[in-house]
Amino acid sequence: MKKLINKPDDVVTEALQGMAAAHPDLLRVSFGPNYIVRADAPVQGKVALVSGGGSGHEPMHGGFVGMGMLDAACPGDVFTSPTPDQMIEATKAVDGGAGVVHIVKNYTGDVMNFEMAAELARGEGIEVEAVVIDDDVAVQDSLYTAGRRGVGTTVLAEKICGAAAEEKQSLQQVAELCRRVNVNGRSMGMALTSCIVPAAGTPTFQLGEDEIEIGIGIHGEPGRERRKLAPASEIVESLATPVVEDLPYEEGDQVLAFVNGMGGTPAIELYIVYNELHKLLEERGIKIARNLIGSYITSLEMAGTSITLLKLDDELTRLWDAPVRTPGLRWGA
Amino acid sequence: MKKLINKPDDVVTEALQGMAAAHPDLLRVSFGPNYIVRADAPVQGKVALVSGGGSGHEPMHGGFVGMGMLDAACPGDVFTSPTPDQMIEATKAVDGGAGVVHIVKNYTGDVMNFEMAAELARGEGIEVEAVVIDDDVAVQDSLYTAGRRGVGTTVLAEKICGAAAEEKQSLQQVAELCRRVNVNGRSMGMALTSCIVPAAGTPTFQLGEDEIEIGIGIHGEPGRERRKLAPASEIVESLATPVVEDLPYEEGDQVLAFVNGMGGTPAIELYIVYNELHKLLEERGIKIARNLIGSYITSLEMAGTSITLLKLDDELTRLWDAPVRTPGLRWGA
Repeated sequence: MKKLINKPDDVVTEALQGMAAAHPDLLRVSFGPNYIVRADAPVQGKVALVSGGGSGHEPMHGGFVGMGMLDAACPGDVFTSPTPDQMIEATKAVDGGAGVVHIVKNYTGDVMNFEMAAELARGEGIEVEAVVIDDDVAVQDSLYTAGRRGVGTTVLAEKICGAAAEEKQSLQQVAELCRRVNVNGRSMGMALTSCIVPAAGTPTFQLGEDEIEIGIGIHGEPGRERRKLAPASEIVESLATPVVEDLPYEEGDQVLAFVNGMGGTPAIELYIVYNELHKLLEERGIKIARNLIGSYITSLEMAGTSITLLKLDDELTRLWDAPVRTPGLRWGA
Repeated sequence: MKKLINKPDDVVTEALQGMAAAHPDLLRVSFGPNYIVRADAPVQGKVALVSGGGSGHEPMHGGFVGMGMLDAACPGDVFTSPTPDQMIEATKAVDGGAGVVHIVKNYTGDVMNFEMAAELARGEGIEVEAVVIDDDVAVQDSLYTAGRRGVGTTVLAEKICGAAAEEKQSLQQVAELCRRVNVNGRSMGMALTSCIVPAAGTPTFQLGEDEIEIGIGIHGEPGRERRKLAPASEIVESLATPVVEDLPYEEGDQVLAFVNGMGGTPAIELYIVYNELHKLLEERGIKIARNLIGSYITSLEMAGTSITLLKLDDELTRLWDAPVRTPGLRWGA
């Protein structure tokens, strides 16, 4: 295992220390239980957004804490759900009296722990709405999931709902918006290589020198099929076709196209993927009105990509364009 | 070789097509000869900045074209200098009557071709100033270089000089500023793994399962030494100590600290590196006033990191903070 780390057990703590040292203008980090809140939390009268999940998917979620996106993030150990006490402490730290939305990726541990935290928070008089993201069309159930897994649409939901909260939309409005983003978002990913969880020290799964995994999960969970390495055009078709046909996205639709790197894939390859996706959608009469290209929801150092489409309307587009200022995503501020 | 590409020979062209499709609001791409210019080029009365170099270092340079940074970038083949005709065409396309600064990384081919292009441009009545960046403290001469190589400081010079040009500073002022950034910037990098040039299909160099290369070049050129894998704290000390002691950076200095990923290294590791660098500089009484953490000058899918320090003054800080809007670096706009 070759990584830029010290002790495997200290990876999450030290990365959080690095974030705290790097971004005091944007966020604060609490240790024990671990959570990250925006520097000016709680913002009075604003709905607060809290997300979280296993570490190893950076910049998601901690890198999305800041103005116009998340109020708090709860990082678990690598590929391990955060605990309810992290979530309840984060929820209390950011509650500004207008309620809190929990954005939860659909993994059994995350869902269960966020449910417990929401109940505890309600017991303390905080209004909580939970929204589960389950946008991955690859498989129905999986190693850690009943139903579809939550992946790339989470990033878009956090950005769009963060903008709505900034506008002082109500708890019900922000939660409803988040559900709308989830309903209109679909994703699928693939891996060229496995990744290594630091505490394990060995690859999560084995993939031959000429093999790829289509429909991979962000923890290396099995996808739809393992097949021989193929040109980018074929790989993009394998990902985008099931995504497009699932909603379905149709001729005349305007979409946000998000080409994500899994952590070990450089920008030059992501632009080749984007080029193929652009051609494929153009042929179907689907217009990419906005895009996001980069590594935003990762699987440690895995090489690979995922494609997310979000069907846009005027409100979603306006909220996507609104200013955001976080370590991982920033514009207009 | 596992990459998200089609034919190895088409990598650069297709990545450029992807950029053109993704960012029509920011830039335009010309093919044959290949160059990228900002969407509103030429900007009348503004000094224009042109850079370029081999592809494989994305987002540098094409991803830094846009308001507040480069006016044009000339991408060569992977790890291959662009040609003078790319540079002269790009220079002519962005000249707004106030002169053009060529920002050149110190590699023999780049320097020679930019010199030829500058001469041709002057012959056509365009004022050109060239500034060579040579900030890599690892080695004096190398495989492709007489003198020190140009690495991470290039990114900072492009941002800072782009802001100065946007303020309508003169050709002499912008060129002088660029030299000042170079004089105050120092870098060193390391690799955990090699990278594979698509047309070659095999790793550029061999590194054992437990080996790292300290002082690596961005094309995989040999560095200072090959040694056994070590904890992040030791690796950061091996990079930062020669960097700090070269200028030298001293107690009381304010610096911009740039922790760069080489392409295959995820954010979680870069934050661990940043944490170590922050501690090391704090012990020496050097204050990190600004930072940049991410993969901005890469070596294809190489795993590794580089550290760049830039000694700041009020003007450099102000220009760093100014709005920028490019695919690779964006804030305040």
